[in-house]
Amino acid sequence: MRIVRSDKLRRRPGGHLEVPERALRPQTALGRVIGRFRTTLFGRPIATEAEQEQRLSKVTGLAIFASDNISSSAYATEEAMRSLALAGAGALALTMPLSIAIVAILAVVVTSYLQVIRAYPQGGGSYVVASENLGVFAGLAAAAALLIDYVLTVSVSVAGGVLAITSAFPALVDEKVWLGIGFIGLLTVGNLRGVREAGLLFAGPTYFYVVSVVGIVAIGLFRSISGDLPAPVPPPETIPTIEALTPFVVLRAFSSGSVGLSGTEAVANGVTAFKRPEARNAGVVLVAMGVLFGSLFLAISFIATRIGLEPDQSETVSVLSLLTRSLVGVGPYYYVLQAATAVILILAANTSFSGFPRLASILATDRFMPRQFAQRGDRLAFSTGILALALISSLLLAHYEGSVTGLIPLYTVGVFIAFTLSQAGMVRHWMRLRERGWQISAGVNGIGAVVTFVVLLVVAGTKFTLGAWQVLAIMPLIVLLLYGIHRHYRSIEDDLLVSVKRPVRVTATRPLVVVPVSRLDRPALQALRIARGLSGDLVAVHVSYGNEGAERFKQRWLDVVGRDTRLDTIVSPYRALIPSLLRYVDAVDQGDRGRPIVVVLAEFVPRHWWEAILHNQTALALKLRLFVRRNTVVLDVPYHLDDPEPVDLQ
Amino acid sequence: MRIVRSDKLRRRPGGHLEVPERALRPQTALGRVIGRFRTTLFGRPIATEAEQEQRLSKVTGLAIFASDNISSSAYATEEAMRSLALAGAGALALTMPLSIAIVAILAVVVTSYLQVIRAYPQGGGSYVVASENLGVFAGLAAAAALLIDYVLTVSVSVAGGVLAITSAFPALVDEKVWLGIGFIGLLTVGNLRGVREAGLLFAGPTYFYVVSVVGIVAIGLFRSISGDLPAPVPPPETIPTIEALTPFVVLRAFSSGSVGLSGTEAVANGVTAFKRPEARNAGVVLVAMGVLFGSLFLAISFIATRIGLEPDQSETVSVLSLLTRSLVGVGPYYYVLQAATAVILILAANTSFSGFPRLASILATDRFMPRQFAQRGDRLAFSTGILALALISSLLLAHYEGSVTGLIPLYTVGVFIAFTLSQAGMVRHWMRLRERGWQISAGVNGIGAVVTFVVLLVVAGTKFTLGAWQVLAIMPLIVLLLYGIHRHYRSIEDDLLVSVKRPVRVTATRPLVVVPVSRLDRPALQALRIARGLSGDLVAVHVSYGNEGAERFKQRWLDVVGRDTRLDTIVSPYRALIPSLLRYVDAVDQGDRGRPIVVVLAEFVPRHWWEAILHNQTALALKLRLFVRRNTVVLDVPYHLDDPEPVDLQ
Repeated sequence: MRIVRSDKLRRRPGGHLEVPERALRPQTALGRVIGRFRTTLFGRPIATEAEQEQRLSKVTGLAIFASDNISSSAYATEEAMRSLALAGAGALALTMPLSIAIVAILAVVVTSYLQVIRAYPQGGGSYVVASENLGVFAGLAAAAALLIDYVLTVSVSVAGGVLAITSAFPALVDEKVWLGIGFIGLLTVGNLRGVREAGLLFAGPTYFYVVSVVGIVAIGLFRSISGDLPAPVPPPETIPTIEALTPFVVLRAFSSGSVGLSGTEAVANGVTAFKRPEARNAGVVLVAMGVLFGSLFLAISFIATRIGLEPDQSETVSVLSLLTRSLVGVGPYYYVLQAATAVILILAANTSFSGFPRLASILATDRFMPRQFAQRGDRLAFSTGILALALISSLLLAHYEGSVTGLIPLYTVGVFIAFTLSQAGMVRHWMRLRERGWQISAGVNGIGAVVTFVVLLVVAGTKFTLGAWQVLAIMPLIVLLLYGIHRHYRSIEDDLLVSVKRPVRVTATRPLVVVPVSRLDRPALQALRIARGLSGDLVAVHVSYGNEGAERFKQRWLDVVGRDTRLDTIVSPYRALIPSLLRYVDAVDQGDRGRPIVVVLAEFVPRHWWEAILHNQTALALKLRLFVRRNTVVLDVPYHLDDPEPVDLQ
Repeated sequence: MRIVRSDKLRRRPGGHLEVPERALRPQTALGRVIGRFRTTLFGRPIATEAEQEQRLSKVTGLAIFASDNISSSAYATEEAMRSLALAGAGALALTMPLSIAIVAILAVVVTSYLQVIRAYPQGGGSYVVASENLGVFAGLAAAAALLIDYVLTVSVSVAGGVLAITSAFPALVDEKVWLGIGFIGLLTVGNLRGVREAGLLFAGPTYFYVVSVVGIVAIGLFRSISGDLPAPVPPPETIPTIEALTPFVVLRAFSSGSVGLSGTEAVANGVTAFKRPEARNAGVVLVAMGVLFGSLFLAISFIATRIGLEPDQSETVSVLSLLTRSLVGVGPYYYVLQAATAVILILAANTSFSGFPRLASILATDRFMPRQFAQRGDRLAFSTGILALALISSLLLAHYEGSVTGLIPLYTVGVFIAFTLSQAGMVRHWMRLRERGWQISAGVNGIGAVVTFVVLLVVAGTKFTLGAWQVLAIMPLIVLLLYGIHRHYRSIEDDLLVSVKRPVRVTATRPLVVVPVSRLDRPALQALRIARGLSGDLVAVHVSYGNEGAERFKQRWLDVVGRDTRLDTIVSPYRALIPSLLRYVDAVDQGDRGRPIVVVLAEFVPRHWWEAILHNQTALALKLRLFVRRNTVVLDVPYHLDDPEPVDLQ
């Protein structure tokens, strides 16, 4: 067999072949239009070898992995204050101590994750750490918790961003679900362009937000030091006091504030996305993120309580917005900060768009998810994971009709489950390896595990009836699903893989060739021609609904094809075309056990795809039935309208 | 090749084979459960030869083909009165003259159709008559009008029947669409059991209605003759006078009343469904139907106006119901008649269930509709047409939310278009043949054509803005669709059919066999084994995303399969698996023009259908792309988990 090499298929050094990028482009006119559209939207394909060049610098890495965490500074203070305010304005004095406690826990978590990065430089999310040290189910529990949280992050932060927009333009309020899905669509396209380009696209807004908030915080701190703090702008509606200041209220406020810790996991999960040295760069980004979020959060809490702000019952004006109004009034700066906040809230979703597909790809590599999730698209992005995340979070958003209040309580439980499992796993890790100084490392992670576990109990306890129970209920189902997929792949693997090392004898067996013919037209002759070339024993078979039809067909066959090729005619009084053919194949099989049966089906390829409904329905039904039959293979012979004459018809 | 004959495949006299009914039954456990369910619902298969036994007697034929027409007696009087009442109670005096005019037109139509049946004993609906005598587009116009009307008949009469039920049980009013779809489902199952069984199932209610109405009409006539007529029961709400009694009002009332002529066409369309002598039996049934409907309609109009009944504005009590109450009060007989009316209204839809599939099968035989419509199911019913009618009428019912008022104005225009075309066609028919006495026949049909055309103008004119315009707008689209399908089939036919009469030489060409292999597992070895048996030149091809992978695979190939089978390795830096394989096939094709290429694809058959999502996605995508490629056929080699070892692996 001669294989023509050309500019479409060339030989590479090392004896392999290669199809250059040019030749991969679409060959038809329509295909080229779609291809051009694709390229405009997603960019040109990127070669696997270029993976290094697609890695993230520290600056873009921070924008990609930290936008979720940093964006929480826009609402973490408010969430805590809102919870406290239910116990009276006096309880707001606890805002600052609670903020300090949360930042302390953040410090513990960051330190612990620094150790994770050091120990797992190939990318160590909670799933990897937990499954390696605590067993597969701990790993899957961490994975399920994180997958849920990534989805929720997208829905919640897009809903939050849309809320900021609809507050400014109330006319859009009926379109909020579509607006949200539109933003998810933009994030999807951005991320399908590849992780690096998404970083470049979305870095601007992240840094713009950081600079804006640092500015207002600096003004606040300066005026606080100079004793020049303004009177607070009152909220449109104060929250009424409805309960006493019990320890439960304090813990609930703490849970609400600790929403700011979500997203910390993303960096450790994505170490391999960084430029070399990966672990070092990831560590720097992790610390930068912690410091940025921590100081913004503390500063906002400090200034808000010093001024004496109160949160707004109706949720139309945020605490950060009241703080800005108090300090600089409603001017250009105020609007800039509002815009930056709306944008960062939507961009928080972007962290999930790098975290979810990355975790899914690790799970797929370990065979816990369908293998499509492990394949990189032509831009090196994990396309299937990106699309799955976009789909699920859009459905969730639509289900909750774009409401933030409905989604928020489901949040944060998952994060702390993952934190706890990962820290506990790290303790086991150090105890097993016992490297130099392992006691200190184990101690650090041990403290992390205990602290995050306590926070988990607090969050689950105070938010259980508000919606956290749904997450806790669905988690085991996801774990079972992942495990079920794994068991399926494993059992198949055992059955399919061939472990021999020495040559095996692949014997050739002449097949029995069966050609069902409904009438003698060009497709049928084409099928016969191919069937004759297959070197097996050949028989054609025709099903009629009555004796006359069978007789007529037999005569025509003898006239046109002759006696060279055997023809069997079946009369089916019950018009049971497909069952009759199946029983016939059974009879052929019984007659010659062991030899494979090739059923040759003539199919007509219509000019337009929509014409397909008018043809080949029977062939399709027959094919489906034969597919599950043992020892039988189906050879599809398509006939195109402008194929050359299959036989000499002159 | 030896083909084992057994109780599953036996030889018939005449040398043909046959699969007995026993062997056609499902072979798997699940299949048997489904099969038993099918048999219970639809009955055992009926052999084609038994078609004669499935024919209709005159008694069942009347029930099948006349239920639509006869059921109109329940509301035709009322429709006319309701239209007249808008011009004041005095205008109701015109009810009786209008009824007589409508019955006169019915007489003309019945006489004309008797001639159609005589001239077209093989079944002569308006489509056949018009297309044969006036050309294909007149025929298609008649067909489109009738198809629309059949669908509307189902939607309207089911909606009417459901209205009768919800009037009695107002609690069900929210479920009216589901109730309606439920009734359509019952009619569908009944008709899939075959035309004869549907007749037997539905004959009872039809005759029950006729007997009940004849009873009340007899009482009324008797009391009228004996001068003992009661005072009218007043309607819950009288219709207010809003216009003067203009000729337009009279014509509109005439249009409304002539709804009673719909369904007359069905008998002529279904002549072949009758026992021998078909034409005679059909004629008797047609006359019986005309006499039954005509006398019931006239009698109801007569008694209603003699008593002095007025229609009810709110549509909660029908005129027939008021008439019964006036004559016999609200007693058992009243309820029996109400029940009979509700049932006959729903059964009116049944006429469409025999008319629509029959017309569709004639159109499909003439290649104006997809050929599935011409195939009889295993109970000899035209299953595709029945299912299509059920689906479309359910959608229409759901679209109009089950409202009769919304659907009624669309009705009757179609019927009169079909009438006019068919009568005009008959005039041409007689003029062409000039048999003995043709002048009389042509005269009868000529009068029919003129009368029905005038009625058509009246109906279209008075109902145009109420909704008839929609039917007139959609008709040309349906004509174009039917014609487009025809042109497609015709052009394909020309290209596909082989007209030679003498033997042709079907030469065998050795194919080039290409086996894409992604890894060396059992399915791949199975595919290789089959491919080796095909006697063509064989090459295996593997696509890697990098040099190392290609190298590794090549080594493994040499270890296991050896050098006997050629392997080409393609490195695709852009992870473009399918385009690379397609370019490779191009190169094979260029190297050896003319020889067909067989691409052998290993496919894994999972144990459960839902596992399929985890496998074979790539093979499926490749298959679709290769299907449209010239000179290429695809051989699917399924691997089942418990297939024997494809090669000796010890």
